[in-house]
Amino acid sequence: MRNIKKEIRIVGFDDAPFIPRSKGNVPIIGVVFRGGKFLDGIFKTEIEIDGMNATNILTRLLNNSKHKEQLKVIMLNGITMGGFNMIDISKLSKKTGLAVIVINRKKPNLKKIKKALKRFNNFEKRWGCIKNAGSIYMMKLEKNKNTYYQFNGLKQKEAERIIKLSCTRSLIPEPLRVAHLIASALIKGESGGRA
Amino acid sequence: MRNIKKEIRIVGFDDAPFIPRSKGNVPIIGVVFRGGKFLDGIFKTEIEIDGMNATNILTRLLNNSKHKEQLKVIMLNGITMGGFNMIDISKLSKKTGLAVIVINRKKPNLKKIKKALKRFNNFEKRWGCIKNAGSIYMMKLEKNKNTYYQFNGLKQKEAERIIKLSCTRSLIPEPLRVAHLIASALIKGESGGRA
Repeated sequence: MRNIKKEIRIVGFDDAPFIPRSKGNVPIIGVVFRGGKFLDGIFKTEIEIDGMNATNILTRLLNNSKHKEQLKVIMLNGITMGGFNMIDISKLSKKTGLAVIVINRKKPNLKKIKKALKRFNNFEKRWGCIKNAGSIYMMKLEKNKNTYYQFNGLKQKEAERIIKLSCTRSLIPEPLRVAHLIASALIKGESGGRA
Repeated sequence: MRNIKKEIRIVGFDDAPFIPRSKGNVPIIGVVFRGGKFLDGIFKTEIEIDGMNATNILTRLLNNSKHKEQLKVIMLNGITMGGFNMIDISKLSKKTGLAVIVINRKKPNLKKIKKALKRFNNFEKRWGCIKNAGSIYMMKLEKNKNTYYQFNGLKQKEAERIIKLSCTRSLIPEPLRVAHLIASALIKGESGGRA
C-alpha cells in the first residue's frame, strides 16, 4: 500500500444471528466505508452455517462488485462466520488482491477453538485457516482499551493505521460496527443499538 | 421543538425494490442517525404492497423501540411506500409524538397520483392521506439543486434546518440515503452505490 488516505475504501463483513449448530444458511452483510466516515455501499449474501464456503463466496462477491476498483481493505470480525465457516484470509487476500484485517475484540482462545473444530471431519483444513491467519497482535485504542487483530496483504503499521482511522465512533471500526447493526436488525427487527 | 441540536435523532425509512402491483409484503428499512453523522441503529419490518398498513406498522415499530425516547423526527421518502401503501403523516406524528418530514426529490405530480389512486376501492381514504400531508414546499440545498418537502408536528423553519443539517454527504438526508442503500442491497445483493 503506497499511502493510506483518510478516505481509504474499506468493506467490513458480519454475520446475522442464528441458532448455533443448526442447518442452513446465515445472511452476511458487507458495508463499504470511506475511512471511518462515509457509508458508500452495502452487500448482502449468505453462507452455510458451519460450512466451508465463506472464503469463496466473499471472493466472488467482491470480484464481481462495482466497488471493487476502489476497495483497498476487507475487515472481518474474527476469521469464522456462521459458526465455524472458516475464512482463509491468505487465500481471500490473494484471490481479491485486497488487504485483509481481522478484528477480535477479545483475544481468541485458540485452545478452545481447536477443541470445537475437532468435531468436524475436515479438522485439518479448518485448523489450516487458523494457521494461515497468522499471529494475533494487540494494539491500544484508548487507555485500558485494547483490540486484537491479524492481517494479510499489508504491513503491520498499515493495518494499525487503518484500524485507528476507521474507529471514529467507538472501539470498533465503523464498517464492522455498522455491518453488525444491519445484520442483527435483519433477524431481530431492530439492532441492539450501539454495537 | 425547543432547540435543534446537531445530533438530533432522526429515523429515515425506505422500502426495498419490488414488482409493482404484485401481491405480498415488501421489506422496509429504518435507519437511526444522530444528525447527519453517526449511524445509531437499524429497523427492519414489512408492509403490504399497495396495502393500507404502513402508518400503523411504523407507529407500532417506533413506539415499541428502545430508540423511541431519544428520537425526535421521522423522515420519509415520499408519503407512499410499497407502491400505494399510504402514510398518514398527521396520524403518524400524533400517535408517535414525533415530528415527520417527507422528502421528495422531484415535485410530486398530484394529478398523476390521483389518477393512480382511482383504481382502489378506498380511493377517498387514500386521497385523504395526500390531503393530510399538507402543502408541498421547495427549498434550495445547493445552487440549482432543490428538494421538495412536507412536514407535520414541527415548524417549517425547523423542518428546513433539520433537512439541511442531515444532508451531510449528498442532497439526500443521511437517514434516507442509507436506508435506501440497505433496502436495495437486501433484494439485489449489492446497493446501487450512492443513492
